[in-house]
Amino acid sequence: MHVLMTGAAGMVGRKLVARLAREPDLFGAEVTRLTLVDIVAPQVPPAFQSKASALTLDLAIRGEAEKLIAGRPDLILHLAAVVSGEAEVDFDKGYAINLDGSREIFEAIRQEGIQNPYFPRVVFASSIAVFGQPFPEKIGDEFFTTPLTSYGTQKAICELLLSDYTRKGVFDGIGLRLPTICVRPGKPNKAASGFFSNILREPLAGKEAVLPVGEEVRHWFASPRAAVGFFAHAARIDTSLLGSRRALTMPGLSALVGEQIEALKRVAGEKAVNLIRHEPDPEIGRIVAGWPRNFDARRASELGFEAETSFDDIIRIHIEDELEGASA
Amino acid sequence: MHVLMTGAAGMVGRKLVARLAREPDLFGAEVTRLTLVDIVAPQVPPAFQSKASALTLDLAIRGEAEKLIAGRPDLILHLAAVVSGEAEVDFDKGYAINLDGSREIFEAIRQEGIQNPYFPRVVFASSIAVFGQPFPEKIGDEFFTTPLTSYGTQKAICELLLSDYTRKGVFDGIGLRLPTICVRPGKPNKAASGFFSNILREPLAGKEAVLPVGEEVRHWFASPRAAVGFFAHAARIDTSLLGSRRALTMPGLSALVGEQIEALKRVAGEKAVNLIRHEPDPEIGRIVAGWPRNFDARRASELGFEAETSFDDIIRIHIEDELEGASA
Repeated sequence: MHVLMTGAAGMVGRKLVARLAREPDLFGAEVTRLTLVDIVAPQVPPAFQSKASALTLDLAIRGEAEKLIAGRPDLILHLAAVVSGEAEVDFDKGYAINLDGSREIFEAIRQEGIQNPYFPRVVFASSIAVFGQPFPEKIGDEFFTTPLTSYGTQKAICELLLSDYTRKGVFDGIGLRLPTICVRPGKPNKAASGFFSNILREPLAGKEAVLPVGEEVRHWFASPRAAVGFFAHAARIDTSLLGSRRALTMPGLSALVGEQIEALKRVAGEKAVNLIRHEPDPEIGRIVAGWPRNFDARRASELGFEAETSFDDIIRIHIEDELEGASA
Repeated sequence: MHVLMTGAAGMVGRKLVARLAREPDLFGAEVTRLTLVDIVAPQVPPAFQSKASALTLDLAIRGEAEKLIAGRPDLILHLAAVVSGEAEVDFDKGYAINLDGSREIFEAIRQEGIQNPYFPRVVFASSIAVFGQPFPEKIGDEFFTTPLTSYGTQKAICELLLSDYTRKGVFDGIGLRLPTICVRPGKPNKAASGFFSNILREPLAGKEAVLPVGEEVRHWFASPRAAVGFFAHAARIDTSLLGSRRALTMPGLSALVGEQIEALKRVAGEKAVNLIRHEPDPEIGRIVAGWPRNFDARRASELGFEAETSFDDIIRIHIEDELEGASA
C-alpha cells in the first residue's frame, strides 16, 4: 500500500507517522511506500528510511498536486491546511491552500483515473469550524454548516467537493471534523484556543499557565492519540456504511474548563492547579463564546470512531505520550 | 441604480426584466443602467433601450466576470447557471460555470473594492438541490446541505462563498433557494421535473400531456411570478435582519400531483384533466423520489418572502401571465 500524507510535518501528521512506524498495519495493509509532504520538511522515522520520501512543497502552486497523484497512492491522508487565524488574516492564502489546494488534489485524482482506472481512498481533515453560532447546546449530525471564519468555509466547501467526487466514483472519500486537540504538545502559542492545552501542559511540566476565560466555559476535545486513531479508523473503515454523506463529526469530550482543572488536580495534585493564573481576556472570551461546545456525534460513534470519555484520560495520555509517563 | 443580471435570457431572468420594465422601482430605486448578460443574447425591453446593454458572454472564460464588475453595478442578480442535468453529464462545464464563474464574480467584486470602496448587493439564485435524501418530510431552515448532484454541490458551495464574502464585508449577499418553478412556460422538455408543468400547461392550451409518476408524488412549487417576487424582495430587503446566514430556502407550496390535477379541474374543467395521459416511467419515478417534498421555510416567510398557497392560484397566474387570461 502506497500512502500519501499532506501536512505530514504538522502535529497530527507527525504523530500519525510515528504510530505507523510502531504499527505497520495501522491502515489495514502493509505500507510499502510512504510519501510525506509539507511546506516544511517532514521527518521520516528510521523504520521507513527505505520506503519513504519526504517532499517539501506548496500546495498553493498549481501542478504540485498532480505530481503527488502521479505516484498513484492507494491512501491519501490530506491534513495540510493554513490554520484558522492565518486564513482569516490572509484571505488569498487561505483559499489558495485550503480550497484550491484540496480541489487540485481531488481533480488530479480524477484526471489520473481518466487516464487509467484509479480509485484511492481520501481521508480529509475537516474541522468543527464548519459550524457557526447560534447553535443548539448539542450539535447533531444533521445540523447545517454555517461557518463564521474563512477557514471553516474552506473546510465546509472541501467536504462538499469530497462528497461529490466520491458520488461520481472518482475516489472513496471521508471527511473527519476534528474536535479541538488537547493536550497539544509544544510551546504555548497565541491561538485563541491555546489556553485549553496550556493550562494542563504547562503545570504538568512545572510551569505557570494563563487562563483567560472563566471556568464555566465549555468546549469539545479529543487527545492527539484519539485524532491519530480517527485517521487510522477512517483508512480502514468499510465506507459503504457511509452512503453519500461523507463528512463526519468525530466523537469527543464536552468539558468545562473547571472540569479540566479538576481532572488536573486528580491526576497531578493541587500544586499543578496552583500554577494556573486567572487573567481574564475579554477578547479571547468573546472569540471562544462563538465556538461549538458540545456535539451528539452519534454517527461517527456508531461507525466505530472513538475518543476519550474523561479529562483524566486525556491528561494521562499526555503524560504517557509526551512526558514519558511522569509529570513534574 | 446600476443593475447587472446574469442569466438574463433564462426564463426567470426574462420575467424579471419584463416586470422591471413595468415597475421601474421594483428594486427600491430607479434603475438608471441595466446590464443584461447571458450565453445567448438577452432581449432588452423597449422601455430600457436607452439605459440597457445586452452582453453575450461565457462566464466560464476567465476575465469575463471582471469586465462585468468593472462597471460597478449596485445590484447584481446572479442567475446564470448550467442546469442540473447538464452539470451532471458535463462535470467540467458545471464546475467551470456554476462554481468558478460565480466565484470569479465574487472575487472581481473584492478586487474592485480593494481599488476603490465598493459594496454592491449580490442576489444569488440557489436551489433546493442543495438538499439530498434522506430528509425529514419537512426540511427546516437548519437542515444540512448534502446534495446528490454536482449542480446541488456547486450551489451549496456558492452559498458558503456568498456568506464568507459577505462576512468579510466584500458585498452584501443573499442566496435564494428556489422551489421548482411551476407552471413553466414554453414547450415540454425532457427534464425529469418537466411533467410537473407539462400536465398543467399543455391541457390549458388544449394539448395532451404525459404524467410519468403516480398522483401520490409530492413536490415543492412556486410560480414564475413568485420567483420574480423573491428576487425583487431580496434586492430591497434590510439584510441586517439576515445576520451571517445568507442562504434562505424560499417559501413554496407543497402539493401532490393529485392536488395539481384537482386544481386544474377546478380552474379549467374535466376536459383539461382528460388531456393528461398516465404513462408511468420508472426511471423518472426513481429520480423524483429522491427530491425534497416539503419545507418549513419559516425564516424566509418571516423575512417577507411570499409564494402561492394554493395550486388554483398557481394555475390562475399562468393563465393571466401566459395565456392572456384565457385557457383553451
